[in-house]
Amino acid sequence: MSVSPADPRVGVWLIGARGSVATTVITGCAAVTAGLHAPTGMITETDLFADCGLPALPSLVFGGHDTVDCPLPKRAEALVAGGVLPHGLPSAVAAELAAADREIRPGGPTPGDTHDPAELVDAFAADIRDFVRRYGLSRAVVVNVASTEPALADPAFTGKAVVETARGAAASVGAAHGGAVSVGAAHGEAAFVGAAHGEAALPPSSLYAAAALRAGCPYVNFTPSTGLHHPALTSLAESSGLPYAGRDGKTGQTLLRSVLGPMFAERALAVRAWSGTNLLGGGDGAALADPAAAAAKNAGKERVLADTLGAAPEGETHIDDVPALGDWKTAWDHIAFDGFLGTRMILQTTWQGCDSALAAPLVLDLARLTARAHEAGLTGPLSDLGFYFKDPVGEGPSALGDQYAALAAFAARLRELSGEGL
Amino acid sequence: MSVSPADPRVGVWLIGARGSVATTVITGCAAVTAGLHAPTGMITETDLFADCGLPALPSLVFGGHDTVDCPLPKRAEALVAGGVLPHGLPSAVAAELAAADREIRPGGPTPGDTHDPAELVDAFAADIRDFVRRYGLSRAVVVNVASTEPALADPAFTGKAVVETARGAAASVGAAHGGAVSVGAAHGEAAFVGAAHGEAALPPSSLYAAAALRAGCPYVNFTPSTGLHHPALTSLAESSGLPYAGRDGKTGQTLLRSVLGPMFAERALAVRAWSGTNLLGGGDGAALADPAAAAAKNAGKERVLADTLGAAPEGETHIDDVPALGDWKTAWDHIAFDGFLGTRMILQTTWQGCDSALAAPLVLDLARLTARAHEAGLTGPLSDLGFYFKDPVGEGPSALGDQYAALAAFAARLRELSGEGL
Amino acid sequence: MSVSPADPRVGVWLIGARGSVATTVITGCAAVTAGLHAPTGMITETDLFADCGLPALPSLVFGGHDTVDCPLPKRAEALVAGGVLPHGLPSAVAAELAAADREIRPGGPTPGDTHDPAELVDAFAADIRDFVRRYGLSRAVVVNVASTEPALADPAFTGKAVVETARGAAASVGAAHGGAVSVGAAHGEAAFVGAAHGEAALPPSSLYAAAALRAGCPYVNFTPSTGLHHPALTSLAESSGLPYAGRDGKTGQTLLRSVLGPMFAERALAVRAWSGTNLLGGGDGAALADPAAAAAKNAGKERVLADTLGAAPEGETHIDDVPALGDWKTAWDHIAFDGFLGTRMILQTTWQGCDSALAAPLVLDLARLTARAHEAGLTGPLSDLGFYFKDPVGEGPSALGDQYAALAAFAARLRELSGEGL
Amino acid sequence: MSVSPADPRVGVWLIGARGSVATTVITGCAAVTAGLHAPTGMITETDLFADCGLPALPSLVFGGHDTVDCPLPKRAEALVAGGVLPHGLPSAVAAELAAADREIRPGGPTPGDTHDPAELVDAFAADIRDFVRRYGLSRAVVVNVASTEPALADPAFTGKAVVETARGAAASVGAAHGGAVSVGAAHGEAAFVGAAHGEAALPPSSLYAAAALRAGCPYVNFTPSTGLHHPALTSLAESSGLPYAGRDGKTGQTLLRSVLGPMFAERALAVRAWSGTNLLGGGDGAALADPAAAAAKNAGKERVLADTLGAAPEGETHIDDVPALGDWKTAWDHIAFDGFLGTRMILQTTWQGCDSALAAPLVLDLARLTARAHEAGLTGPLSDLGFYFKDPVGEGPSALGDQYAALAAFAARLRELSGEGL
Repeated sequence: MSVSPADPRVGVWLIGARGSVATTVITGCAAVTAGLHAPTGMITETDLFADCGLPALPSLVFGGHDTVDCPLPKRAEALVAGGVLPHGLPSAVAAELAAADREIRPGGPTPGDTHDPAELVDAFAADIRDFVRRYGLSRAVVVNVASTEPALADPAFTGKAVVETARGAAASVGAAHGGAVSVGAAHGEAAFVGAAHGEAALPPSSLYAAAALRAGCPYVNFTPSTGLHHPALTSLAESSGLPYAGRDGKTGQTLLRSVLGPMFAERALAVRAWSGTNLLGGGDGAALADPAAAAAKNAGKERVLADTLGAAPEGETHIDDVPALGDWKTAWDHIAFDGFLGTRMILQTTWQGCDSALAAPLVLDLARLTARAHEAGLTGPLSDLGFYFKDPVGEGPSALGDQYAALAAFAARLRELSGEGL
Repeated sequence: MSVSPADPRVGVWLIGARGSVATTVITGCAAVTAGLHAPTGMITETDLFADCGLPALPSLVFGGHDTVDCPLPKRAEALVAGGVLPHGLPSAVAAELAAADREIRPGGPTPGDTHDPAELVDAFAADIRDFVRRYGLSRAVVVNVASTEPALADPAFTGKAVVETARGAAASVGAAHGGAVSVGAAHGEAAFVGAAHGEAALPPSSLYAAAALRAGCPYVNFTPSTGLHHPALTSLAESSGLPYAGRDGKTGQTLLRSVLGPMFAERALAVRAWSGTNLLGGGDGAALADPAAAAAKNAGKERVLADTLGAAPEGETHIDDVPALGDWKTAWDHIAFDGFLGTRMILQTTWQGCDSALAAPLVLDLARLTARAHEAGLTGPLSDLGFYFKDPVGEGPSALGDQYAALAAFAARLRELSGEGL
Repeated sequence: MSVSPADPRVGVWLIGARGSVATTVITGCAAVTAGLHAPTGMITETDLFADCGLPALPSLVFGGHDTVDCPLPKRAEALVAGGVLPHGLPSAVAAELAAADREIRPGGPTPGDTHDPAELVDAFAADIRDFVRRYGLSRAVVVNVASTEPALADPAFTGKAVVETARGAAASVGAAHGGAVSVGAAHGEAAFVGAAHGEAALPPSSLYAAAALRAGCPYVNFTPSTGLHHPALTSLAESSGLPYAGRDGKTGQTLLRSVLGPMFAERALAVRAWSGTNLLGGGDGAALADPAAAAAKNAGKERVLADTLGAAPEGETHIDDVPALGDWKTAWDHIAFDGFLGTRMILQTTWQGCDSALAAPLVLDLARLTARAHEAGLTGPLSDLGFYFKDPVGEGPSALGDQYAALAAFAARLRELSGEGL
Repeated sequence: MSVSPADPRVGVWLIGARGSVATTVITGCAAVTAGLHAPTGMITETDLFADCGLPALPSLVFGGHDTVDCPLPKRAEALVAGGVLPHGLPSAVAAELAAADREIRPGGPTPGDTHDPAELVDAFAADIRDFVRRYGLSRAVVVNVASTEPALADPAFTGKAVVETARGAAASVGAAHGGAVSVGAAHGEAAFVGAAHGEAALPPSSLYAAAALRAGCPYVNFTPSTGLHHPALTSLAESSGLPYAGRDGKTGQTLLRSVLGPMFAERALAVRAWSGTNLLGGGDGAALADPAAAAAKNAGKERVLADTLGAAPEGETHIDDVPALGDWKTAWDHIAFDGFLGTRMILQTTWQGCDSALAAPLVLDLARLTARAHEAGLTGPLSDLGFYFKDPVGEGPSALGDQYAALAAFAARLRELSGEGL
């Protein structure tokens, strides 16, 4: 795997760039590029995406924002100790880790920060543009892999409702607070409607999302945080002419549910109760122990059941913070269903996965796919990427098999575009 | 749900007609017809098959062969005690059970039986024809739901190899033993090549399959037994002009594998080992405790992994006879897979199901589908019904989602034919 | 199994007498007496209690209080439909169910009840005394098997703290509210300190417990409800001269924990996190979905871990109401522990049990044991019965094996007393 | 933790000294001695064994036999890669690994070996004596931690039967083959009865066991291999005046069974079927995939069920070789039991452990305990150590709690002896 000097380079700007997922993304991209590991878990390296014109792995350049300052090489060693990265790998890719580390800028807002949101968006966008300029990148994509933030209090602002109501809401929010703030114009055509003084203030994830748009970059939200799903950003997103994708990467329990739910539906079996418990440590365990943060994640988990089964079954889904598990998570599902003549049967599943190792190849996929989509002139919500998400943007199927078919069609479209000389 | 007097009635002739599956089929068809239970588990009762011209449930008439003589009503009460059928149901459908019981004829060969295979095939076919005649049925389908019989010793005769090599093999078998026996001609155009004196003698399931063809009936093999998968029957099947389906209903562990295998493949995760244990009581537990009988079943179970994963992973699949479990079975699967950078992860599943309640609605589906296929003039292997089987006849996909799509296409084809006035 | 006419009969007065547990107790006692079923699950029917002078099963007479009025025979049929009782058993023991049904009196307080607590205690005690008198019983024991009630808000009143601080607290409660109410004297020597006007008002379970004492009956609390664990009842319990036992029968997850916790401790393995989820339907599922009710139950569940492991590990325990499960409950436990050199290992357990069938034989055991203890003149907390409870009264070991040894010693003591002519 | 220069040093001679368990034993002893890790999993480091006069960990000196020649430091690095040993530990204890590596002598018999058994025993014993002499050790114990060897074909020679029938059998074996061979006299008082020319030839594990006796060393068999359980060694063992212990360390599934079996028995619940599957890689997985080797192991596993439940339930136990799992093993157990009135319930357990990390602390315990027993003059089977084994020597309880009590009594006895000035 090589990249010729003439190949255009593509930036991957990670929000939460010093976290476990980002560190695994950067380490893993270098490891696969160097031929040290197979690209296990990357769909973009399978035949499905042959000749689709995706940027080559060696052409990716990493940078990002974070509010902590632990150096990437040290973070990578911690992941070795936690069993996430193989022993010896951080030193084998030390140069790449150091290079990325130099491109990580302070995030925000931090406690005591006196900047108003518009200033933060300005600063973040400037960081990204500077990164693109200095490396002479053909483009950069922004991917949110930061810890989950608490959900917005107003249920009207969560889930798909946001997309549907955002247009009107944005106007009224702006109106209500009299706080319209122009954050300038990405590509010169969009105006940012802020809400700096009210309770609907933009959460940090939305500030970064706004910065991405302002810097002219495609945006991917790999977390359940708000990001672009905020009424104040809707019109900006629509008018930006940029492609975007999200939300909340599907890496474990929901991945399973997206194949098991359809199985029950296709077999006409009556699922009566679907209960689940997730145990996870790491930063995400602590973040999601906050019921407000868990709410957004669970909404996505339960949506796939309602969508694939036709109705939401009984049962709850718990997320427990278990620090002793580190980066590992365990998801137990218990499904009570009725068969012929009402006979009760049970399926249980236990998924023991490493969150960062599950997420990282998908993040690399998404960075490549959205960069290519941008290059190809695609805009707006990339609903064909629902395969990757718990709560996909746009309209699309919920069953994994159908999402895979949609992804294959997307690949075919890219391939066709590539054949046309792009 | 009603059937007008003018509606043509369709026979369902069950091999193993006094077993748990058959008893549940007959009881359940009556219960759903009477509106006592919803048709849970029957895909043919979902919108997928609306307007496809399937025979209505009330139009089905049951009969069959069995070597035991426990009356169906008594068998049904035993299933109530075992938790398979709801309390009170056998008495609610007593008339239907008694009617079916009267149409069960002695099977064979029994120990000490002095009839040669050709005589048995003659007798079985006569039983079926008599059933069709007396009831004035428009047609009948034969479904094998008997206990699994030991696999053929010659590995060349197991699995898909049979279909591929059968043509030549049949000739050589006949030649080698000098025992060609004409069993007459179903539809007047086929000659049955038997092997009465050699070690490749037809197993009982194949005698019944030959009888079905001879009686001009579509044939469904819901078990892993040989049935039509015998070289001596290949040309007969081909020339019979009858549709047939099989083999080995997919009701638990393999059903799960047919959605989980594709999930791993689509996510480019590297499955390293897939191990499984099945605990089952009932007659099937004892039958499959015989390694030879288990071999056929396991071949189907492992094929779905090899087909969906691209290669067979490490790991064994056990079938244990645990009489204490009665009609209930438990399947545990342990899947070790590698994610990004080789990180080892584990998925475990435990499926606790009632074999008869899982099988019965699928048997009703298959009886209706093959009857309709016969009516519509379809012939040969119904490869579109792979959704139902571990080891489907013909060529077709292995992933459940793809099999469901094929089934939907089959439904559309039937619907179209119905619209044309069939 | 027979009881001679001269044998003294013993009353079992069940609080919650129309519930699943009580119905199973009454049905099961009759079934075992009639020889229809083996006494599976009853330790008092094993050799351990041979010659201990326990009242014979046929000598038990049932009655009780309940606030609902579904007849026992109908309740028993519902348990048949739910898979708890075998088909046909309710009609086989119809006479015994009807007899017990006639001895069930209305419980309380019911909504809109204008009686003050002292009046209710009076009425309940009169019901019990009347039962004893009419049947000429040698004695009766009162067993609480009602749905769990919400825990007391004040944490000082929960758990073992109650027993330790109760003496002083009772006085101060009485003093603080100026509401000392004499509820008369069980055995003429105790005065009941009530708290009718304050926020520490006695919960229903404590009213029944007070009534038991007042009627001179041993008391067993098989639930996590307050019962005698109320400061206002402490001195009454102490001065009553009656034996009592509780609290919260150990029937599933905690039973397992009481053998697995000691295993880890004895093997010097370091348990880092112990997480659990309980899924249960029935009345208890709904009652325990109330966090306040679950709190008492979970306190007992987690105590056994802290006691047997030496310290409480990380991890939460959830109780989910899943009505679709009916009387069945599933408990999943996930235990992360470190072995030699810090190697992380995992144990998972899944317990699928029928709550009523697990509880009923233990309730019969406890009724017999406390009746015999009363006969033998034992008084106060029966700490030797910790084997049966999540949160045992008095001091005693937490490991099941040690509790079994204590139970065996208790049996030996009873046997010795029997030999002395009691 | 230190050892004064004057402290007597104790040898630990490991059969299979280059295997995973031995490498973990040696690495771990050094790590705990150096204070790098807590002695998790070592019961001898808990308060139970305070003041019992056990040899201190720093006083242990390691050597052994093996037929392979991979250096210990390299083996330790492989265990790091497999997740068994923490990263960095082998280099931290490099000196200790190198020292032990120098004391490993070639084992046998190897293919093509022309030495007769008596010569091998001579040579092995000489190796051990040389080790003791050169280091000036006060004593050495021999511990078998080699891969499991195939079970003896004659069922009369397996399991406890060996102990009971060994005396007579040994004589007859000697007589039958006319092959009595004096292998000299350990301590001058015992004669070794060999069987070099017959089908009852000593397996390798028995040759090492004989060598241990001959060298005057206590012997511990941590594997299910024959070792001292051979009729030809019975009288030698008896007359040697040496203590010995075994057989087959209890590290996972059987450990669990030894607490769950008693739980069911104490609760008078009727276990109907106990089924299990073990998945393991590493050398042991391959060795136990041999049905003959698995037979010995399974005999021990099932014995604990029969002993604790009173009768052997239905169900099989599988051992699968799954190389992809490396040193990790997974044991699934499925237990079907009947509760009150025959209600069927299910317990499932899944144990995911690292075999070497589970075994190593127990091996260190056993080395210290048998060394101390030798010092204290104890002889013959150490039946008080049943806590450690699947198939303990001598008579003793099967429930883990009772075995722990026996171990505590053993500790008290050692403590008493220590107080007397030993």
